[in-house]
Amino acid sequence: MQLKKLIPLVAAAALLPSLGLAEEAGEAMEAVERLNMEVVFIMNSLLFLIGGFLVFFMAAGFCMLETGLVRSKNATMQLIKNVSLFSLATIAYFVVGFNLMYPLGDWVVEGWLGGIAPTVLEPVGVEFDALDDVEYASIGSDFIFQLMFCAATASIVSGAVAERIKLLPFLIFVIILTGLIYPIQASWSWGEGFLDEMGFLDFAGSSIVHAAGGWAALAGVLVLGARYGKYSKDGKVNVMPGSNLPLATLGMFILWLGWFGFNGGSQLAMGTVSDVADVSRIFANTNTAAAGGAVAALILSTILYKKPDLTMVLNGALAGLVSITAEPLTPSLGAATLIGAVGGVIVVLTIPMLDKLKIDDVVGAIPVHLFAGLWGTMAVPLTNSDANFGTQFVGMATIGIFMFVASFIVWSILKAVMGIRVSDEDQVNGLDTTELGMEAYPEFSKG
Amino acid sequence: MQLKKLIPLVAAAALLPSLGLAEEAGEAMEAVERLNMEVVFIMNSLLFLIGGFLVFFMAAGFCMLETGLVRSKNATMQLIKNVSLFSLATIAYFVVGFNLMYPLGDWVVEGWLGGIAPTVLEPVGVEFDALDDVEYASIGSDFIFQLMFCAATASIVSGAVAERIKLLPFLIFVIILTGLIYPIQASWSWGEGFLDEMGFLDFAGSSIVHAAGGWAALAGVLVLGARYGKYSKDGKVNVMPGSNLPLATLGMFILWLGWFGFNGGSQLAMGTVSDVADVSRIFANTNTAAAGGAVAALILSTILYKKPDLTMVLNGALAGLVSITAEPLTPSLGAATLIGAVGGVIVVLTIPMLDKLKIDDVVGAIPVHLFAGLWGTMAVPLTNSDANFGTQFVGMATIGIFMFVASFIVWSILKAVMGIRVSDEDQVNGLDTTELGMEAYPEFSKG
Amino acid sequence: MQLKKLIPLVAAAALLPSLGLAEEAGEAMEAVERLNMEVVFIMNSLLFLIGGFLVFFMAAGFCMLETGLVRSKNATMQLIKNVSLFSLATIAYFVVGFNLMYPLGDWVVEGWLGGIAPTVLEPVGVEFDALDDVEYASIGSDFIFQLMFCAATASIVSGAVAERIKLLPFLIFVIILTGLIYPIQASWSWGEGFLDEMGFLDFAGSSIVHAAGGWAALAGVLVLGARYGKYSKDGKVNVMPGSNLPLATLGMFILWLGWFGFNGGSQLAMGTVSDVADVSRIFANTNTAAAGGAVAALILSTILYKKPDLTMVLNGALAGLVSITAEPLTPSLGAATLIGAVGGVIVVLTIPMLDKLKIDDVVGAIPVHLFAGLWGTMAVPLTNSDANFGTQFVGMATIGIFMFVASFIVWSILKAVMGIRVSDEDQVNGLDTTELGMEAYPEFSKG
Repeated sequence: MQLKKLIPLVAAAALLPSLGLAEEAGEAMEAVERLNMEVVFIMNSLLFLIGGFLVFFMAAGFCMLETGLVRSKNATMQLIKNVSLFSLATIAYFVVGFNLMYPLGDWVVEGWLGGIAPTVLEPVGVEFDALDDVEYASIGSDFIFQLMFCAATASIVSGAVAERIKLLPFLIFVIILTGLIYPIQASWSWGEGFLDEMGFLDFAGSSIVHAAGGWAALAGVLVLGARYGKYSKDGKVNVMPGSNLPLATLGMFILWLGWFGFNGGSQLAMGTVSDVADVSRIFANTNTAAAGGAVAALILSTILYKKPDLTMVLNGALAGLVSITAEPLTPSLGAATLIGAVGGVIVVLTIPMLDKLKIDDVVGAIPVHLFAGLWGTMAVPLTNSDANFGTQFVGMATIGIFMFVASFIVWSILKAVMGIRVSDEDQVNGLDTTELGMEAYPEFSKG
Repeated sequence: MQLKKLIPLVAAAALLPSLGLAEEAGEAMEAVERLNMEVVFIMNSLLFLIGGFLVFFMAAGFCMLETGLVRSKNATMQLIKNVSLFSLATIAYFVVGFNLMYPLGDWVVEGWLGGIAPTVLEPVGVEFDALDDVEYASIGSDFIFQLMFCAATASIVSGAVAERIKLLPFLIFVIILTGLIYPIQASWSWGEGFLDEMGFLDFAGSSIVHAAGGWAALAGVLVLGARYGKYSKDGKVNVMPGSNLPLATLGMFILWLGWFGFNGGSQLAMGTVSDVADVSRIFANTNTAAAGGAVAALILSTILYKKPDLTMVLNGALAGLVSITAEPLTPSLGAATLIGAVGGVIVVLTIPMLDKLKIDDVVGAIPVHLFAGLWGTMAVPLTNSDANFGTQFVGMATIGIFMFVASFIVWSILKAVMGIRVSDEDQVNGLDTTELGMEAYPEFSKG
Repeated sequence: MQLKKLIPLVAAAALLPSLGLAEEAGEAMEAVERLNMEVVFIMNSLLFLIGGFLVFFMAAGFCMLETGLVRSKNATMQLIKNVSLFSLATIAYFVVGFNLMYPLGDWVVEGWLGGIAPTVLEPVGVEFDALDDVEYASIGSDFIFQLMFCAATASIVSGAVAERIKLLPFLIFVIILTGLIYPIQASWSWGEGFLDEMGFLDFAGSSIVHAAGGWAALAGVLVLGARYGKYSKDGKVNVMPGSNLPLATLGMFILWLGWFGFNGGSQLAMGTVSDVADVSRIFANTNTAAAGGAVAALILSTILYKKPDLTMVLNGALAGLVSITAEPLTPSLGAATLIGAVGGVIVVLTIPMLDKLKIDDVVGAIPVHLFAGLWGTMAVPLTNSDANFGTQFVGMATIGIFMFVASFIVWSILKAVMGIRVSDEDQVNGLDTTELGMEAYPEFSKG
């Protein structure tokens, strides 16, 4: 009897450490899972930070590209426009744009018009358990990354309307574009709006950023008119060569560099083996598409014009980059090369076409960002079976109509209210002297 | 009786696996903790490496900014000064500076004068258990990051004294500045010296780096005197415009890019959710402050001078960056914008003021780095409750007095011993021809 | 009796949870190990991605350096050559080069001739268990990193043969160099070929990349001949100064920046404490060697020519970088400085020597990349006891003979078949006008 009583006690004694152990083993497992989540969060945020500074540098790339491609008498204007547009975009995007674009459920009009509130970052020293979205990334990192995309749309416009636009109305347009027009449009796809719902796929923004910027630029160019002297009455197109091609080439290289962040960062995650391998694919495809675009433009321009054309090669590389941006992940390296090469061909063929239509796009921004962007968007289904041509077309068209119409209206209002065009005489003298009183290269004699 | 003997054996048998398990579960927990520490160490080191290469690139940014803002006859001199100063700073900092700045307890004079020893990195392939500071980062990564800050102080000086200083005395000053003056001063705050003890807060160096460099520059400018012809006897200030504004703008963009590393890296840690979210906040605030500075300078210069002024906008952006550097973490985006905007205002107002005082600062380094640096230091308590105005003032003043006096003495000795100023005639002909025999743009006719 | 039967049951009951626990504790341990492997894979891949974009940017660095050092009438040609060579290298390397260089056991001729197949990346969204090499990094990240090294060899050639080579044969040479010659040679050391087997050590490519590019350049220069007018019949060397030294200096800074990726990434791993500390050492040593090279060139050029020489300082820094590239890990900071300084001395002494031999290397690529590369290769045993002078010499010589002979043959065939040299008259007028019809600086009068 005594023994019988003992048995349960012995059993309990034997179980006791097991119970403690159960807790300990469970704790270890929980600790691994938690560490895993922390690693994912850190790596995702880091991807955005690296992507953020790389895409930031694209602002310098656009600035150098455009300044190298304008005449030296308008170079200071191009510089001040680019520095100012980026600065204003920064402010507009944090005050209004970011939450308009990423309402996170708080839509004003579900799927169509996002949230109205300035950006609020996580508190200083936020703890794991206080995170909004532990499986994504820090708000600040996401914000900085997305801001750079928004600013890029304004940089695209800047090049097209160069050499004859007034500074103030241009900057007002930038504020509206980066604070309202772009974020609203982008929310439709990337903020889980109605285009996303439909299945429209645009990985890093061939349509959402590049064609969007291109449409805004096209509207601007149409409202603004061509530069004085660009198109003679007899139909002759007067070439106005860029004043500093090394600077333009540097700009192109900086843009290419930044595109690793632009497309690579758009994977939005780097905290798993699978994600980092995908980011790597994207790096390789992005680079190869740029090469394809440059080589295609090199060959085609040599065939068409008998001599290789540097500005075509620069724009060809950029068009290759724009083309792959809608889907930099799924193509093979060979497919990426071809997608980029088609972009390069588009640029070489459409730059003179615009001139025939007397659409004066100073740096080729419309062929590069708009036309190659449309091609890139429609090319997604070629390598990604989740996409289909119909939806891609609807997305592309919806974005295009909205961007063009909204931009056209804003440009037209600005034109009516304050005037947007520098006088012909001042254009002849150069915007740097007349509008700014500061020459870019005051010591170098002009030939 | 037989049974009674059996019971403990049974119990022991039941416990045996539990004991083994206890070890196994404990080992798993230890492995998680160790992995966690490794991840922290790796990510912290990576932050320094990324910060390091970004801030390294600021050397190029300063070089381009300054070379674009001098006249073309002095451009080669500005280039060789900047390449050489960075190289000499590298050597001076590893031979003397790093351990002076981070004595890690081995002070020569506790809290005031750090250690005297060249930098020794961790051995090749150092193992976890052999690490000095497993909770921080690799010595090499910390060294490379801190070196870049040290070199930045010399770059700041370089711009202010441009166009009339001799190369050799300038480089001797750089060696003393980067090997001794800066590290001693920086040890007081960042090496756990007496200013740190007092509670002085300067996150990434508005005072410790920027104002410090500005004080050294001011001392240099005062000892050196103005450029020949800058101030006429009738009190007229002769404008000597920068020769290559696209280059200056590129330099500004590179500096802005580098500042993500400058401020972001100064979080000193990225291995936890909390730290990476803080680094993200810093990125966002740094960017926004630059935008605020640029926009404020754009608006104010337009109001004051009727025309927007590119060099003011460039310096405004930089002043915004300097202003936020003392506390890039705690402000909201709105506060960061305002802190940066005040920096931009300071620059626009003080650049002409210096000219009235006949203090000839070629690139605006003193307004940007010194004045905005002081503002940034005093602005810390506005958003960080751990700081107070009294201590900030004491820190700012202590650093200022030491940097100015030490620099003034060194400049004066150099002036007495070997002369620091290029003759008026040689200034007229340009330093590139007279001092170096090499023109920066030999083929371009000067107008 | 009843009790006796109970005892095993009690024991079993006590063991039962232990068994479950054993599994659970084991699972936790497995989860830690798996997470550890994932972290290693992610960090290694990230190192390649960061290294990749940094070394990519070196393409821009080479382009700016070379364009700044040629006369302005040949600047557009230098730009189009550099953009095109990088693009063609990208395509050649993915179609042929990568698997030739890294056959991973699939040699055509064991240890001598690698695999013939285009590059295939990991599938989209590859899972951990499907990874080829879970202990290394993603194929895409490795590919993008290695591609940049391959392209660098072509960039080196580009500078040496500037100002008189025709575009088309140059680009054909680039395709053969980057698709075949370089990958075959590089496979011998880095693809686990016969030089690796022998114990030849070249960490990041002083011989494999830099001297290799230098040999190809030397062959090109010899087959091509000097620029028209460079060497007078009376033995006089005509100086043809670079047209844009700020651009050249920018290029040098970009190269220096990129070298952090070049050498740091060549650690090939960053996922352990030990590896990240090694990457940090490499960053510090790389930077210091560049400084040593610049300072040595500054001092020696001042002594030899009485005036400091900017282009010598730029090439000195680059020679310092090339010198440390064969072994950036094992030296102390002091040793790294000296290794770099010797590189700087070599450059200052050999640049005029080449002119005496009437070997016309426009930008100093052969002294910087070939001579300093040979020095760096032979310096490895000074700080790394795993290396020995004999093997280093054999490796260096083998690579040299192969690169020079193969390049010489290709250049000679190109010369025979299509001609590689622009006519003297066209050289006088400038390649930009005659070959391209596009000036780099069309508005700036040439003095």
